[in-house]
This record gives sequence, structure tokens and C-alpha cells, in this order.
Amino acid sequence: MSNRNCFRLVLYILLLPVIGFGQGKKSTSFHIVPLGVLGGIDESNLSAYMVAAPGTNDYICFDAGTLHYGIEKAVNNGAFSIPAEQVLRRYIKGYFISHAHLDHIAGLIINSPDDTAKTIYALGSTIETIKKDYFTWESWANFGDDGEAPALKKYHYQILTPDSIVNIKNTAMTVQAFPLSHSNLTSTAFLVQSNSAYILYLGDTGADEIEKSHNLQNLWTAIAPLIKTKKLKAIMIEASFPDEQPDKTLFGHLTPKRLMKEMHQLAGLSGGSLKGFDLIITHLKPPAASIVKIKAELKAENDLGLNLIFPQQGRPIDL
Amino acid sequence: MSNRNCFRLVLYILLLPVIGFGQGKKSTSFHIVPLGVLGGIDESNLSAYMVAAPGTNDYICFDAGTLHYGIEKAVNNGAFSIPAEQVLRRYIKGYFISHAHLDHIAGLIINSPDDTAKTIYALGSTIETIKKDYFTWESWANFGDDGEAPALKKYHYQILTPDSIVNIKNTAMTVQAFPLSHSNLTSTAFLVQSNSAYILYLGDTGADEIEKSHNLQNLWTAIAPLIKTKKLKAIMIEASFPDEQPDKTLFGHLTPKRLMKEMHQLAGLSGGSLKGFDLIITHLKPPAASIVKIKAELKAENDLGLNLIFPQQGRPIDL
Repeated sequence: MSNRNCFRLVLYILLLPVIGFGQGKKSTSFHIVPLGVLGGIDESNLSAYMVAAPGTNDYICFDAGTLHYGIEKAVNNGAFSIPAEQVLRRYIKGYFISHAHLDHIAGLIINSPDDTAKTIYALGSTIETIKKDYFTWESWANFGDDGEAPALKKYHYQILTPDSIVNIKNTAMTVQAFPLSHSNLTSTAFLVQSNSAYILYLGDTGADEIEKSHNLQNLWTAIAPLIKTKKLKAIMIEASFPDEQPDKTLFGHLTPKRLMKEMHQLAGLSGGSLKGFDLIITHLKPPAASIVKIKAELKAENDLGLNLIFPQQGRPIDL
Repeated sequence: MSNRNCFRLVLYILLLPVIGFGQGKKSTSFHIVPLGVLGGIDESNLSAYMVAAPGTNDYICFDAGTLHYGIEKAVNNGAFSIPAEQVLRRYIKGYFISHAHLDHIAGLIINSPDDTAKTIYALGSTIETIKKDYFTWESWANFGDDGEAPALKKYHYQILTPDSIVNIKNTAMTVQAFPLSHSNLTSTAFLVQSNSAYILYLGDTGADEIEKSHNLQNLWTAIAPLIKTKKLKAIMIEASFPDEQPDKTLFGHLTPKRLMKEMHQLAGLSGGSLKGFDLIITHLKPPAASIVKIKAELKAENDLGLNLIFPQQGRPIDL
């Protein structure tokens, strides 16, 4: 081999992590294990998504509606090679609770006696409700580090304030919170960064038009630069009801039509195409016939060419 | 056939409902469909038991930790011949909540948007916690008929006071409540009568000795006459931890040894044998190894010859 060719080979090897292994293959930025994907009724399958940087077991958990049963399903699917109890205790490093409705936090409360010490990240209003309504000594035990005495101090409450970026303890990731409008509650979107990649998870949210709010518009404006630079790898967003649901009974949720209208807003703000962009659809509400309808409507109304992903409980997704 | 023989045949036919079909067969007094049987962690299998008089669909539900998933399992097992949603809406006539810990009420809250109007029966302290911590507008919506405004009034709160017998709406059954000691909470035992038969369900409870209480002793004294007259068909009672659990970490629960000690008390008070009496064991706490241990210990310590029944989710029991 000539010196020049040898130099080229060494350069190629050094640059491999940057250019990726095999030019056709997209490198993975996030590994997601959905623990629960539905928007109600079925106690065994309520909103919760474990997310980690690939190759690590340093997971965060977006919402915590169902934990144990979802982890068991994931273990049965080969997503984890240690027992379910150990996944909960060792792999989940922190919880990100979008709002305090029971279907987003029941799993965390039910599993708390068997969990290890970790941090709960949320907006101040959400943490107030956790302290006031869940970790009380009448409805459970106080496993938090604040609220009704005696505080058992297993969970540390970390209040997030919109627009400040916070390191996520025991992971190499950071988080930024954005407020969302969910009927009478402030819900939350979490923008998580891992290396130079981002993922955005939205808790329950209505459309600005219905909610008389600018929260979604502000969120799209904030993340548009990350779409332009292709640093945002996916958005996880709800579609709770089919299009037929009347506005007055949306209760702070989106329909396929309203979700796609929001995606058009985002496409406009980011000055480009969203074709092929990964959109993970969460919080579909039973009955089964509604879920079938929501999926069909989203596909039919997807004129932007988004890559629609319908997560399944216990089935990992790599982005 | 002679007149005498004909008269005998007619008499036999008329008496059939009284003497039972086939002399060896015990007539059934209660039909139970367990919707959830465990004492924690697994969100898909938390305490809830539907109970009706045989041949009716007028069920009550003792506790409501898991509803939808348990009903689905029961439907899949052929226990009901209508869809799960309809079982919830049409067959459950009222909920009996023993205490307000989340693992005894999460299913009721999660399913409330899809439920029909009915009554929640509980002691005043339990209903206070439901109003204060669950049916609030921060943690859910207020589906009760009292508490934080606006009250949606789907559920009527019926406060039970110990020692008064109350008709259960839309059923032919009555209920009487007894207080139990469960660490810092007052839990409840429900004595339900259907025709001339009774069944006793106990929510979480510790032993009097540990709880510094007389609640179990008082309960056994009250029901002893029903044991003597064989009107009490079964007791549903918890055994949460194996015998090795230290007293200071019982958190208001029973072990096999303490449960059997209570049964000896009851046998003494009822002045006779409990041999063959149906004892349904509830609220076994995972992990699986603990559950195996609890069952083995109960069998080994069953010198009274009780008929130990370990309910399975979605598998009916006839008593």
C-alpha cells in the first residue's frame, strides 16, 4: 500500500464515527421502549416511554402511566435482558411527568415502594399536584422529598422552568420544558438533547385555536431551527380522538386533522419540507374502533409525507 | 303410576328448589369474578372483585384497583358474553372501596369517563380522600356528586357508618361496614347479604396486636353467629407478606401466621369448627417468589382445615 493510500485508510477509520458505518444506514440517536401507548381505560397500557442514547442503559421515562406491566412485556419481547424489577430500579434514571392526570402517573405511584431513589422532573404546577394529591399519607405514602410530613425522600422533585436547559442526572442528556395547554391544566413538552441530536415529547395538548393559547405556536417557533438543521430526530405527539369528535368535547386533546394543521404550521416555520420526518403518535383513546379511525385519518391527511409511527407496548423503536 | 307415587313425584318436583338439584351438590349463593388479585406493582392486576347473586347480572365491586384489563380477561375466559365496555357500564351497580390507597381505586378513576352513573359506598374518611385527592380538577375530573366544583355528579357518594345495614341500589343485596386498622388509615370490611347468605370482604388490614386495635376482634365477634348458623359462605381476606416479614415493615398487613391466628380467634368465638370453610386469599404482594412462599406457608399452617382459595384474575368462583 502506498503512503498516500495508507493515509487515506487511516483518515477513513478516524472519520467513521462521523460519516457513519455504511453510507446508506442512518446512525441511531435515540432508543425508545414504549411501556404504555393508549390514552385511557386500559390500566395495563397507559402513557409511558423509556428513552436512552443507544448503547447505554441510562433511560429517562416520559410520563409514567403504566410501568411494571409495560416493562414485563418489553422483557418478554427481548427488549431487556434483566428481570422487570431490575429494569425499573436500575435503568430508569428519572421521570418526566407532563401533567398530573392519573393516566400519566399511576405507574410511578403504584411502583414507588419497589423503586430506587431518583428524580421527578416537571413544571412547578405538576409537582404541586403530585405533592397535594398523590404522595399524601391518605392516598398512598409520601415518597417525595417535599410535601406532607414525614417525607420519605425517595424521589427528588426537580422543578423545570420553561426556557432553561437542565442536565438530567445519571445520564448524558439535557432537557428543556415548554408549557402546553390541556384544558384547565398546564401540560408540558420536553425537548431532550443527547449528543447533537434532539427528541421532542409532548404531553396531552389541545390546539391553540381551541385552547385560546399560543403555546404550540411558541413551541414550533422554538424548535424550527432544529428541524432546519436536521438535529431534531422525532416528535412524539398525541392524537386522542378521531376527527368526528366535537370541539366542545375535545377536553384539551388533538384530532388527526388538528394535528396535521399543527404540522403544517411547523413546516412553514421551519422553512422546509417535513417529508420523511419521524412523527410518533401517542395517546390514542380506546375503543378499538376509534383507534382504527384515528390511524386511517392520519394516513389519509398526511399530505406532508411525514413518517407516521404508531408505537406498540414493549416494542423498541430506534431513531 | 299409582296415585301415591304420582303425588310423591309432584311433591319432589315442587320441593326441588329447596332440596337442591342432586343431593350432593351445594347450592350457589355468590358468583365472584376477580378482576385483580395482587397487592401491588402490576398495574394490570390490582384488587377488584365483582360479586353477584347467581343468575343475576347485578354485580357489586369490592375495591377497584384494576377494572378494564380484568374485565377483558374475564370476557376472554368466557365469564361474560358481552363486550368489556358493557360489563363495566351495565353489570357493575356499585363500588365498595375499602380504603383510598391508589391500588384499590385506580381502575375506578381511570375508567370513570366511560362509566355510567352509579354509587360509591365507603366509610366517610375514605370518601373524604376520594374527594380531596382523586376526583379533583388537577389530578383528574370531579365525577363525584360532592367535592371540588363543578361536580359532574356521575357517582353518588354513599357514606357507610359502622353497624347500619344499607340496601345496595339496583341489586337485591344489603351491606354492613366494619372498620379495620391499616397502619395510619381506617380500612373497611364489607358484610354483604344476598337472600339468607352472607359474604365478608376485608380490605387491607393488620393484626390487632400490631395495630394496637380491637377491630378484628370486634368483627369476628359480630360475624361469629353467621358462622354458627352456616349463613356466612366465605371470607375474603388479605395475606400480603410471607411470615419472614419483620413486624416493623408490615405497613398494616397480614402474614400467613397472623392470618391463621385470626382464624383461630374466629373459630373460638364461633364455638365450632371452620373445617371446609371457604377462605379466599387476596392481596398477595409480588415478587413471584414471595407469592409462592405465602401460599406454601398458608397451606402448612392450615391446621383448621379451611378451604383455601387463591383467586385468579378473570376466573369466576362460585360459592
